[in-house]
Amino acid sequence: GFPGYPGQKGEKGEGAFVYRSAFSVGLTERAPHPNVPIRFSKIFYNEQSHYDASTGKFLCNIPGTYYFAYHLTVYLSDVKVSLYKKDKAVIFTYDQFQKNNVDQASGSVLLHLSAGDEVWLQVYGEGDNNGVYADNINDSTFMGFLLYPDPDVH
Amino acid sequence: GFPGYPGQKGEKGEGAFVYRSAFSVGLTERAPHPNVPIRFSKIFYNEQSHYDASTGKFLCNIPGTYYFAYHLTVYLSDVKVSLYKKDKAVIFTYDQFQKNNVDQASGSVLLHLSAGDEVWLQVYGEGDNNGVYADNINDSTFMGFLLYPDPDVH
Amino acid sequence: GFPGYPGQKGEKGEGAFVYRSAFSVGLTERAPHPNVPIRFSKIFYNEQSHYDASTGKFLCNIPGTYYFAYHLTVYLSDVKVSLYKKDKAVIFTYDQFQKNNVDQASGSVLLHLSAGDEVWLQVYGEGDNNGVYADNINDSTFMGFLLYPDPDVH
Ligand SMILES: [Ca+2]
Ligand SMILES: [Ca+2]
Ligand SMILES: [Ca+2]
Repeated sequence: GFPGYPGQKGEKGEGAFVYRSAFSVGLTERAPHPNVPIRFSKIFYNEQSHYDASTGKFLCNIPGTYYFAYHLTVYLSDVKVSLYKKDKAVIFTYDQFQKNNVDQASGSVLLHLSAGDEVWLQVYGEGDNNGVYADNINDSTFMGFLLYPDPDVH
Repeated sequence: GFPGYPGQKGEKGEGAFVYRSAFSVGLTERAPHPNVPIRFSKIFYNEQSHYDASTGKFLCNIPGTYYFAYHLTVYLSDVKVSLYKKDKAVIFTYDQFQKNNVDQASGSVLLHLSAGDEVWLQVYGEGDNNGVYADNINDSTFMGFLLYPDPDVH
Repeated sequence: GFPGYPGQKGEKGEGAFVYRSAFSVGLTERAPHPNVPIRFSKIFYNEQSHYDASTGKFLCNIPGTYYFAYHLTVYLSDVKVSLYKKDKAVIFTYDQFQKNNVDQASGSVLLHLSAGDEVWLQVYGEGDNNGVYADNINDSTFMGFLLYPDPDVH
């Protein structure tokens, strides 16, 4: 017989999947030890569990471009902190403390990460620049999120 | 007759809709009152009108993960400010003022919000920690944006 | 003959293209000149090359809503810096320096940009508020990224 009518229009394609990787954490123990990752154990957001509160490290699961930011309360001594990526200090934040003058210091950066890369904050150097402070009503925080997944992820 | 030819290929699915919810505002009145939301009335961005300049509150319309940040000029007195979500102080930023030493204090956090949740900044406590300052050439700012809409929104 | 069977389901629509535009840079020369863009020449991320290290300016290629942030080390003199969009100062950050009290000052804002718009940081005013400092282990940084492309881009 003759060809039939054209078939029905195909179903609408699905929307793009939204890749999610984010964490937002706060300090509970003040005066962190130098030369080891600062462990932030108050959790504001860690839905994908890519941040490990037992080590203080964020582990990249989805390759792409990430945003990281931190805000530190400077109290009792100076603060010198670095954001580390794979054992290398990437950015440095320094703030001096003076008596009766609690300060705030912050930093942020965009980094491309590959799966398996770890990122964390650490007091820098051997000195006593560990005046990062927190208590019930004073925060020092660290956060990060996936901004753009790599094209090949799709 | 025989079956017809297969129908035409369905139309290409539409790209994922981009959910937008963001605001970026600045202070115009210094020394905000404690225990009420700080009203930021200089508008840098509020296209979706999810921030209400008359109350100082951001209202969540799209459930998902949000980023919030603020940057405060510390002048004339100390500053202690909290970011509130639904009447609960989530993070605290404290910076002491000393004469001739204007400072800057900042904070940021990621939070999951449900539709109807409100977020704002407020001077914390009964004391006089309201040294948040702004004038024509000095800003104190507050902003937020939807980072990841919830999966079921799609 | 009779109509044929319905055609096969159309192919799944492609995922939405991810528009990317982001940069993250650091200062290498301290005490920037007033009244010209601050040139940040240490590159943390500039994959799309929308930031020009020779001028210090970010050039908008994709119309949409952008996030900008900066973190400045305040040392040796006061700091007054503005974020400029198209030759107009949009936000102002001021921090006073006092001896033995290095400070950190930061700012962030969301702005809608059209293709061709330029954004940069600049020391504000004629005075000597150029105490923005950086060395090998002290950073002053500037960054920005496309948050939401305009709907008509799709
Ligand atoms: Ca202070
Ligand atoms: Ca200062
Ligand atoms: Ca200081």
